Amino acid sequence: MSWTLFQERVQTVRDNKVFEFFVIGVILFSSLMIGVRTYELHPLLNNSIQFLDYAVTLFFVVELSIRMTAEKRFKDFFKKGWNIFDFIIVVVSLIPLDDSEYALIARMLRLFRVMRLISFIPELRVLVNALISSLPRMGYVALLMFIIFYLYAVIGNLLYGALNPVLWGDVGISLLTLFRVATFEDWTDVMYEAMTLYGYSWIYFITFIFFSAFVFLNMMIGIVVEVLDEEHKKMEAANKADALAEDECLQQSYEKRLEAEISALHQKLDLLLAQQTVQKP
Amino acid sequence: MSWTLFQERVQTVRDNKVFEFFVIGVILFSSLMIGVRTYELHPLLNNSIQFLDYAVTLFFVVELSIRMTAEKRFKDFFKKGWNIFDFIIVVVSLIPLDDSEYALIARMLRLFRVMRLISFIPELRVLVNALISSLPRMGYVALLMFIIFYLYAVIGNLLYGALNPVLWGDVGISLLTLFRVATFEDWTDVMYEAMTLYGYSWIYFITFIFFSAFVFLNMMIGIVVEVLDEEHKKMEAANKADALAEDECLQQSYEKRLEAEISALHQKLDLLLAQQTVQKP
Amino acid sequence: MSWTLFQERVQTVRDNKVFEFFVIGVILFSSLMIGVRTYELHPLLNNSIQFLDYAVTLFFVVELSIRMTAEKRFKDFFKKGWNIFDFIIVVVSLIPLDDSEYALIARMLRLFRVMRLISFIPELRVLVNALISSLPRMGYVALLMFIIFYLYAVIGNLLYGALNPVLWGDVGISLLTLFRVATFEDWTDVMYEAMTLYGYSWIYFITFIFFSAFVFLNMMIGIVVEVLDEEHKKMEAANKADALAEDECLQQSYEKRLEAEISALHQKLDLLLAQQTVQKP
Amino acid sequence: MSWTLFQERVQTVRDNKVFEFFVIGVILFSSLMIGVRTYELHPLLNNSIQFLDYAVTLFFVVELSIRMTAEKRFKDFFKKGWNIFDFIIVVVSLIPLDDSEYALIARMLRLFRVMRLISFIPELRVLVNALISSLPRMGYVALLMFIIFYLYAVIGNLLYGALNPVLWGDVGISLLTLFRVATFEDWTDVMYEAMTLYGYSWIYFITFIFFSAFVFLNMMIGIVVEVLDEEHKKMEAANKADALAEDECLQQSYEKRLEAEISALHQKLDLLLAQQTVQKP
Repeated sequence: MSWTLFQERVQTVRDNKVFEFFVIGVILFSSLMIGVRTYELHPLLNNSIQFLDYAVTLFFVVELSIRMTAEKRFKDFFKKGWNIFDFIIVVVSLIPLDDSEYALIARMLRLFRVMRLISFIPELRVLVNALISSLPRMGYVALLMFIIFYLYAVIGNLLYGALNPVLWGDVGISLLTLFRVATFEDWTDVMYEAMTLYGYSWIYFITFIFFSAFVFLNMMIGIVVEVLDEEHKKMEAANKADALAEDECLQQSYEKRLEAEISALHQKLDLLLAQQTVQKP
Repeated sequence: MSWTLFQERVQTVRDNKVFEFFVIGVILFSSLMIGVRTYELHPLLNNSIQFLDYAVTLFFVVELSIRMTAEKRFKDFFKKGWNIFDFIIVVVSLIPLDDSEYALIARMLRLFRVMRLISFIPELRVLVNALISSLPRMGYVALLMFIIFYLYAVIGNLLYGALNPVLWGDVGISLLTLFRVATFEDWTDVMYEAMTLYGYSWIYFITFIFFSAFVFLNMMIGIVVEVLDEEHKKMEAANKADALAEDECLQQSYEKRLEAEISALHQKLDLLLAQQTVQKP
Repeated sequence: MSWTLFQERVQTVRDNKVFEFFVIGVILFSSLMIGVRTYELHPLLNNSIQFLDYAVTLFFVVELSIRMTAEKRFKDFFKKGWNIFDFIIVVVSLIPLDDSEYALIARMLRLFRVMRLISFIPELRVLVNALISSLPRMGYVALLMFIIFYLYAVIGNLLYGALNPVLWGDVGISLLTLFRVATFEDWTDVMYEAMTLYGYSWIYFITFIFFSAFVFLNMMIGIVVEVLDEEHKKMEAANKADALAEDECLQQSYEKRLEAEISALHQKLDLLLAQQTVQKP
Repeated sequence: MSWTLFQERVQTVRDNKVFEFFVIGVILFSSLMIGVRTYELHPLLNNSIQFLDYAVTLFFVVELSIRMTAEKRFKDFFKKGWNIFDFIIVVVSLIPLDDSEYALIARMLRLFRVMRLISFIPELRVLVNALISSLPRMGYVALLMFIIFYLYAVIGNLLYGALNPVLWGDVGISLLTLFRVATFEDWTDVMYEAMTLYGYSWIYFITFIFFSAFVFLNMMIGIVVEVLDEEHKKMEAANKADALAEDECLQQSYEKRLEAEISALHQKLDLLLAQQTVQKP
């Protein structure tokens, strides 16, 4: 059997819907197993899960080989981001770490197989791409937000650093405390403590909440408006093209009839002129 | 009295507005009674409520019989989802459970009579149908959200399972803890405890909050945009039809006048031609 | 001085901008005084505030008399809701309650003078009217929300009423507890306690949070869409009228020119026909 | 070298992209240093940071001088708000406060250099201007919100001031407590305490939460609708202009052809008339 023929057969396997669903099934099953292992299990069940885990690892290697073999030019396989993502996850899970002290890391790496669901289900892939493409839109607002947080974090450290180092010890801890305040998580406890030192500390907290909430809300509104605008523009463009086509269509049929009538007038006048020319001599 | 005549009379009862409002009144009353029974009451009042409860059960059986009898073909009754819903609630409340150890379940089942309000008030039915129809729209985002939660739940169990089994004991408990973190409910307590073990645990929590909030917000914006788009398209379609009709109307009246004028020109030219033909010989 | 003349003078006072701003100033001042009195004050200041309070009461009586006198027909005064609102507040604050045991109520009643700001500043009046007009829109969703709350409240009372009567003692207390859960306020404490009795209590809480959040979010989205739609329809209508007018305008100028040209053709043809008729004999 | 020539050279420095990025780099670096100093550092590092701080201060003076010199008319420099902002920050950081007891204030003032990022990055400047321009839109709603808060604050002080002066001691503290309730921060603790005094206190809290949430949500919806409307109007105007231009264009080409045909008819008729006039004699 030649290589090309073999590759074609592998391609039919890869493009088979049954194979695809089987892979998704295995991914789901292996994800479930990782969850199941967090429960205390009978040693026998634990062992069989261990065994199944090896089987899944082997299956993923085979599945990846099929996808790599099926690719016409081997290099093309690594041109798609999701393929590289799959390759790394499969290769990394081959490293024998289970018995060493890195067992925790090994289990975590296998966990990322769950994310292969995203690379396999097209709807999820579209969703994740949409989420990623919405990131730059948030860039400068995030920067502005960070400036506000940073300003308040340093001020918080300067004011309350000596009072409670657990909350305001350095600028990093202060940022964490401010994030907590921004989520309204026991923020009054933080404020009441600060007010024991400086009575006007509520100004610091209330202005911080107002600024961060104000910037956040405006960002949200800005995004809604921007997304709606884009959708709207797409639709308007489509509508306008439609409307123009229809208008032109209507107009043209009308124009043709009118022109036909007028050319009929011309013919009659031409006839009249011809008759008169005949009549004259 | 023949069956058909009897059925017709039953139909007039069923379609009677007074009967309808009376049924709604009984549903409201029975719902209220269930609430009233949660208070400590005088035994006499308690007994009379018990009695009224039987009366309501009986009334619901009668009311259901009327609706079933009024249906032209008996099978059609069970074709509507809300009818099946009513039927199950009424039938189940007939099971004599009050004196047994299942009294709690019996009271809960009777409670679901409150939901008959939804099947009886058309506006609520529309609302519930709209809510149900908005579910599939959320399907894949919910799946993506679950993948994020599942990933973090297993990682949380691996990292903090030994530290605090009450919060991170297995993947189920971890999911619950993460849901709590996502609602900002005392999430810093969970984080500060985790930070005693690994100083960089804040990365786990902050990234989780960012990811879940980010996906949630994008989902919300996506839904708003989608719903608005649908509404917009409906309206645009209606508008376009209107505009076209009006345009055509305007255009047609104008065309008719123009064509009338041009046909008048034709008539005159025809006359000229006719005269010349007469003149020639 | 006749009554009509007097009434006219009173009207000029009432419609005077300076008078209006002075009234707003007095309202603001009296509101501020109520706030100031919550602080511990020097007896002298306290007394002068007491005195100023009498002065404000008197001023409001005078101001109301002016507005009532200025009204052409006395009955018309009570046709405006805001006037009745003002009248009640002013009259009630005249009841001498300060030295009795109802002093607390007296101070509260005077507090409602703050709300006269709303009846005096047109922008606030518009805002409040808009808020009130948005209420019916929320009617049926609120009813649906209440059904969900009521269902869960009774179930909560049945399940956990014996465990913790402070939180689940009767259906009223349960509703309060559920409102607390819906605001995410220490809801895990409530849940963890409930889970000591029934291990699967998390289902009760998670489903409740999902249902209430789901209905709430859909309500919000529904309102945004509805409000936007209304605005949109108004604008579309205005646009369409504009577009039609412009289209017609363009079309008409063009039609006129065309008709002028065609009537010129008619004139020439008429001339031809006339000439031929002349020529024939 | 003449002044004009010198000024031109300074201008080329100011407008140089490399210089601009270098300034942004120095701002970022000085902001970072302020953050770094909140950590406990080796004395040597601390000293070098102190030294770098002087260097940065000097650099900012030089940079400001360059920008001021480059300005054609010296007065124009202070016409831009952001320039005044920069000037104040740089001048204030020159005041020698480090060794005095005002060291804290000196460090805070230097902190505001972080905000020079906003004046230097155009995207952030646009964002901040947009945020500032969205403020008036919120004016009257904020006033209405404040009236609600003030009303409830005074009532809260009257009812619970004696029970817990820490939460309801005067109208200011009550406002803070109500803000806490509005953020759902341990609001049930406040309510349960209040309910020990008056059993119906839940009415106070539930109505407050409903009113404030209701006004807030309506404000949010109002802003979304308003912003969308503005965007929409802009786009509509642009669309209409486009559509009109295209319509006119289409119409005109059609009109020209029609007019050409009709003038051809005229020519022929003129010829006929001319021939008949010739023929008559």
